Amino acid sequence: MRGAILHSPGDVRFEQREDPKIIKPTDAIIRISATCVCGSDLWDYRGINPVTGPSPIGHEYCGIVEEVGSEVTTIKPGQFVIGSFFASDGTCPHCRAGFQTSCRHKEPIAANGAQAEALRVPLADGTLVATPEVPGDDLLPSLLSTSDVLGTGWFAAVSANVQPGMTVAVVGDGAVGLLGVLSAKRLGAERIIAMSRHESRQKLAREFGATDIVIERGDDGVERIKDLTEGIGADAVLECVGTDESMSQALRSTRPGAFVGIVGVPHSVQIPGEQLFYSHATLRGGPAPVRRFLPDLIDLVLKQEIDPGHVFDLTLPLAQVAEGYRAMDERRAIKALLRP
Amino acid sequence: MRGAILHSPGDVRFEQREDPKIIKPTDAIIRISATCVCGSDLWDYRGINPVTGPSPIGHEYCGIVEEVGSEVTTIKPGQFVIGSFFASDGTCPHCRAGFQTSCRHKEPIAANGAQAEALRVPLADGTLVATPEVPGDDLLPSLLSTSDVLGTGWFAAVSANVQPGMTVAVVGDGAVGLLGVLSAKRLGAERIIAMSRHESRQKLAREFGATDIVIERGDDGVERIKDLTEGIGADAVLECVGTDESMSQALRSTRPGAFVGIVGVPHSVQIPGEQLFYSHATLRGGPAPVRRFLPDLIDLVLKQEIDPGHVFDLTLPLAQVAEGYRAMDERRAIKALLRP
Repeated sequence: MRGAILHSPGDVRFEQREDPKIIKPTDAIIRISATCVCGSDLWDYRGINPVTGPSPIGHEYCGIVEEVGSEVTTIKPGQFVIGSFFASDGTCPHCRAGFQTSCRHKEPIAANGAQAEALRVPLADGTLVATPEVPGDDLLPSLLSTSDVLGTGWFAAVSANVQPGMTVAVVGDGAVGLLGVLSAKRLGAERIIAMSRHESRQKLAREFGATDIVIERGDDGVERIKDLTEGIGADAVLECVGTDESMSQALRSTRPGAFVGIVGVPHSVQIPGEQLFYSHATLRGGPAPVRRFLPDLIDLVLKQEIDPGHVFDLTLPLAQVAEGYRAMDERRAIKALLRP
Repeated sequence: MRGAILHSPGDVRFEQREDPKIIKPTDAIIRISATCVCGSDLWDYRGINPVTGPSPIGHEYCGIVEEVGSEVTTIKPGQFVIGSFFASDGTCPHCRAGFQTSCRHKEPIAANGAQAEALRVPLADGTLVATPEVPGDDLLPSLLSTSDVLGTGWFAAVSANVQPGMTVAVVGDGAVGLLGVLSAKRLGAERIIAMSRHESRQKLAREFGATDIVIERGDDGVERIKDLTEGIGADAVLECVGTDESMSQALRSTRPGAFVGIVGVPHSVQIPGEQLFYSHATLRGGPAPVRRFLPDLIDLVLKQEIDPGHVFDLTLPLAQVAEGYRAMDERRAIKALLRP
C-alpha cells in the first residue's frame, strides 16, 4: 500500500509502505475511506517537535474493516468504522471514567500512520465505533471530523462546562476552535464570541454559530470580551491554541468561577500560578477523550443535525498529501481532507 | 485601642492604635472577641511579601458589633458577627455567583488589621453574618475558624469536587490542610490521605477524619498515593500549600478527570502546561469565597456537628501576638488564637 511518510521538517512524501498486518489478536485492519491533516501534525511538519527520521504520520481516519484479530468481538469486516487518535482498551479505570486518552494501554494511532490507504488499529473493540450502515460519500467529511477535530472541539466545550444560555468565548480560529464554536452552539450557548482575524474563518465561525467576532488580541482582546459581557467576562472559554498568549487570553477573558476548556496542545506553556489563582478560573481539559463522544457525535452527523465537515475547505487525493500540509502550513487552507 | 503592627520582617508589636471609626455609611465597627494568625500572615512576617513600613495586620475575626453606618440594614449593634477576610458587597455579579473574593468592590480586611481590639469592617451588610445569639466562649475557636481557615479548607474540598465515597488526598498539613481533611470528611469522603511528616499534625489529621498518612514527598509521595489507590490516583486532591513542589505533587497524585482544589496562595508558582494537560486534572480554586459558606459553616459549629476549633493548639492574650507569630514561624504551633 501507499501512505505518507514524514522524512524531515517540511518533507512529507507519498510512498510505498508495507501493508499493515494483524500483529495482536485485538487488532483490526481498515481500508481508509478518508483521512486528513491535523493542526498538531504541523508541529512535526514544522520541526517544532523533533523529527527523528522517516516515519508514518496521521491519526484521523474512517474506513471499512478488512480484517480483525482473533480476540475482536464487536467489530466485523465490512463495517464502516471511526476511531479516536489514541487506541484505548475501553475497560481500564480511566476508560470507564471516560478518559480514554489516559487509557492504561493506550497506543497512538499516529505511530501507525493514518494518512495511508490502510491502517492497523490496536484494541479494536475499545477503539472503533461502527455505523449501522456504510454511509454515503456526502457524509464522509463530517464523519471523519468526529475522529479528532470535532471530538476535540466538543471536549473543549464540555470541559468549559458550556450550558444553555451562556456567553462563550473561543480562543483560536483553527479547525478545532471553529468546531468548538459549533459544539458550544449545540450545547445551548446563547452568545458565542469567536476570536479571529481571518475573514474566511470568521465566516465559517458565523456559519457554525458565532454571534460575535473579536479581532483584537492581548489586552485589547480582553477589553473587547469585557465590553461584550458588561465587564463580567465570559461564562465559559474554549482555549484551542496552546501557547502562553492564548492561555493568558483565555484566563483573562473568563468570569470568576467559570471554566476554561483547554484542548490546544501546549508547547512550552507555563501557567502563572498567581494569575490562575486570582482569576478564579477553572482549568480543565487535556487530550480529548474522543472515544467518549464518538457514538453521540456520529449519531448527530448521521441524523444531519450538525455539519462539521464544512471545516474541510480543501479536498485532495491522498497522493497529494504534501500539498495538504503546505496549504495548512501557509494557512491557505483551514483543514485538508485526503481521499485514497 | 491596641493592636498588632508589623514593622519589618520578624518584628510584630502590640501597640496603641487609633480607634476605628465609621468612614463610609456601609461600615460597621466590631469589638473583637477572638482573632488569630494565618499562614498567609507569615509570608509578610518572613519578608517574602515586601513589608513597606509599619502596617496593621490580621484578617480573621469575630466579635460584637459596636456601631454601624447609616446605610447598614441587616447588621445591628450587640450582634455577634463573623466575616470573611475580604469585605464584599454581596450584590455584584461575582458575589451573586458565589465568588465574593472577586467582588467588584472588595476590600481586604488585612488593611484594617484584625489582630486588634476593634475593627472597621467595610460593606457590613454584604460581609458579616450574625449568629442568632451571642455564643458561649467554648464555641469561639470554632466560630473564629469559619472566618478563613475552615472556609478555605472547605473551599479546597468543594473545589476538588469531593463527593461521597471518594478517596481524597490532601497536600499540606498546615491549618488549612487539616481543615481540608475535616471538610472532605464532612462532604462524605470515604478515604482521606493526609500528606504530613509531623506527628502532632498527623494526630490532628486523624482526629479530623484522615484514614491514611503519607510521610513521603516528591516521587515517593506520588508512588505511595498510587499504591493506596490501586495505581489509579486520588479521586480528588486538595492543594493547600502553594509551591511548585506541592502543585506538582497534587497534579501527579490525581486520577485523570479528577479535580485539584487549589487554595494555597501561590508564590512564584509556574504550572507546566504540558504536565497539567497530560494529567487530565482539573485545577479549580483561588482565594476562598468564604462568605458563600459562612452561614452553613456557622450553623454546623453551633449545632456542634464539627469541631474545627481544635486546629488552634496555642491560645494567647492578644498582647502576646508576637509570640503567636514566633510559634507559628518556628512550627511550634499549628495555629495561634489571640484573645483581647
